[in-house]
Amino acid sequence: MKLATLKEGGRDGTLVVVDRFLTRAVKVQSIAPTLQAALDHWGEVESRLRKVYQRLNDDKEPGEFPLDTSALAAPLPRAYQWADASAYVNHVELVRKARGVEMPQSFWTDPLIYQGSSDNMLGACDNIPLPDEAHGIDFEAEVAIITDDVPMGVTPADAGAHIKLMTLVNDVSLRYLAKDELAKGFGFFQCKPASAFSPVCVTPDELEDAWRDGKVHLPLITHRNGELFGKPNAGVDMVFNFPTLLAHAARTRFLSAGTILGSGTVSNKDRSVGSSCIVERQTIEKLEMGEVKTPFMKFGERVKIEMLDAEGHSVFGAIDQKVVQYKGVASYELPVASKAGGKI
Amino acid sequence: MKLATLKEGGRDGTLVVVDRFLTRAVKVQSIAPTLQAALDHWGEVESRLRKVYQRLNDDKEPGEFPLDTSALAAPLPRAYQWADASAYVNHVELVRKARGVEMPQSFWTDPLIYQGSSDNMLGACDNIPLPDEAHGIDFEAEVAIITDDVPMGVTPADAGAHIKLMTLVNDVSLRYLAKDELAKGFGFFQCKPASAFSPVCVTPDELEDAWRDGKVHLPLITHRNGELFGKPNAGVDMVFNFPTLLAHAARTRFLSAGTILGSGTVSNKDRSVGSSCIVERQTIEKLEMGEVKTPFMKFGERVKIEMLDAEGHSVFGAIDQKVVQYKGVASYELPVASKAGGKI
Repeated sequence: MKLATLKEGGRDGTLVVVDRFLTRAVKVQSIAPTLQAALDHWGEVESRLRKVYQRLNDDKEPGEFPLDTSALAAPLPRAYQWADASAYVNHVELVRKARGVEMPQSFWTDPLIYQGSSDNMLGACDNIPLPDEAHGIDFEAEVAIITDDVPMGVTPADAGAHIKLMTLVNDVSLRYLAKDELAKGFGFFQCKPASAFSPVCVTPDELEDAWRDGKVHLPLITHRNGELFGKPNAGVDMVFNFPTLLAHAARTRFLSAGTILGSGTVSNKDRSVGSSCIVERQTIEKLEMGEVKTPFMKFGERVKIEMLDAEGHSVFGAIDQKVVQYKGVASYELPVASKAGGKI
Repeated sequence: MKLATLKEGGRDGTLVVVDRFLTRAVKVQSIAPTLQAALDHWGEVESRLRKVYQRLNDDKEPGEFPLDTSALAAPLPRAYQWADASAYVNHVELVRKARGVEMPQSFWTDPLIYQGSSDNMLGACDNIPLPDEAHGIDFEAEVAIITDDVPMGVTPADAGAHIKLMTLVNDVSLRYLAKDELAKGFGFFQCKPASAFSPVCVTPDELEDAWRDGKVHLPLITHRNGELFGKPNAGVDMVFNFPTLLAHAARTRFLSAGTILGSGTVSNKDRSVGSSCIVERQTIEKLEMGEVKTPFMKFGERVKIEMLDAEGHSVFGAIDQKVVQYKGVASYELPVASKAGGKI
């Protein structure tokens, strides 16, 4: 099943069911007004939503309309939790190596997860408004899961059942602000502006056998300004699978329905597949050629993130964004997802 | 004006207006069903809510009922953002000194803020369910603000206008987990289980002239098992006031309505007033007597956090909680605020 959120009906948008090939959608207000409402009552609404999905794919659902992905907000335009891991430890080791820092061996056995901001999520085609090019603007292509209520202390064996939906993420990062924040030890804050999500989120069964071992075994394809930047396979070199990450996150707390948990930048040891973020490519350039060649993003540049299934169909639709200069808005005229409509 | 959230009506509870002396309440469904809904439309609902508050104080509001603070959830039982600062730099310096670590001088000029989890907030009288006493269970008494929509790049001068409500917080911390997480640099995660909030939140004018210079000039009183633990003044030694913290938080992003921003553990240089968390007292013991005397909390212990106005009236009501062992719950039988009702 594929679900998305239209930019209409308020801050949380309007839930729609989308057909398998991302061409048509239908509102499901009588089942759940928003994706959060659906997740709050997943046990009750899932089968009803799946019936709509089936009928939509069979061309038997009245009320369908053509899907315009630019009219979509993030699946959860504001969420109660966004936690982001760094499960491709190869990436972490590489970046540390370039900085001349030894990565603790514990990183191979103890997952890294940071708490991200979730109050304002960007839609797949929303511009990325940022105040300053000098902050080192980077993208990070990731896979994420969305859960129902997860009990504290859940085991990795039981955690998988709480994964209800999957999505792609562009975890926008400001690298020159990250350095100082890492040194403070309080985690990332200013260096992690709003993240963006793919047009649709999908139930794990949509991935068929590409979803196994708690990982998504498909390449995650990133383009920068129309040129291929990387296509590492999200199922390769993921040291901690999603159930393990979920168990780590729930060790000392409950996770409420609608929790979004990210994989971290997808990265393979095989360097020929490219990278999912600029800083990793810079790191490889520094290690292989002694100097960084690839600059961070400037205003006006674009990033596109997508995942294709074995037949070449887009699973989640494409994140396709432009970085723009934020020039200030008057109070109470806030843009993007906080009003669930409009762009800057 | 004083507002609170009843544990009824769903995950987000039911908004009530509470009288000045915290004895009576009235539902305001025709104005806003939940506190989040009120904050989403603050400009439209504030004056209507204030009229109810006035009538309630004047004994002229029909439908009032006696207030039972144990029937209250956190003002926002689940929120879109909880960001917590460490604005009493004296506290940070003290704790680092005891660890034999030099605090960077930049901590006096560049605020520390971490992103906390906001998907499951505890009510003022909810038990604190935790898996293990060996994690070093501590409380942290804090003051926090709740905002409407805050534009990216807001200045400290303009940020004050976005502070709509204030509340008290018990930022529960697991100290032995914090050490490893600090070393990882990814911020706090497992060491910060769900926080608890005071029964009511109040508009800044309720503090009268105790709210000035962007700080709350009243003692924050913490009791442990009925004994006074500390009463530092929240207006003293706060290096960064709330508008400054808000501007820091909004440097690279919008903050959506309902953002909660905490002060960090309230701490005064004057050691005679005591502390707002155990680890600070332990630090002082170590510095003054060479060894730690005060243990962390065990299951069954209680913590109470309150703030009284100049006449001795409780401004926010008391956070009054017991630490209990979490023994696991079956999936879909989740407790506390995630169901906006019940306790573990």
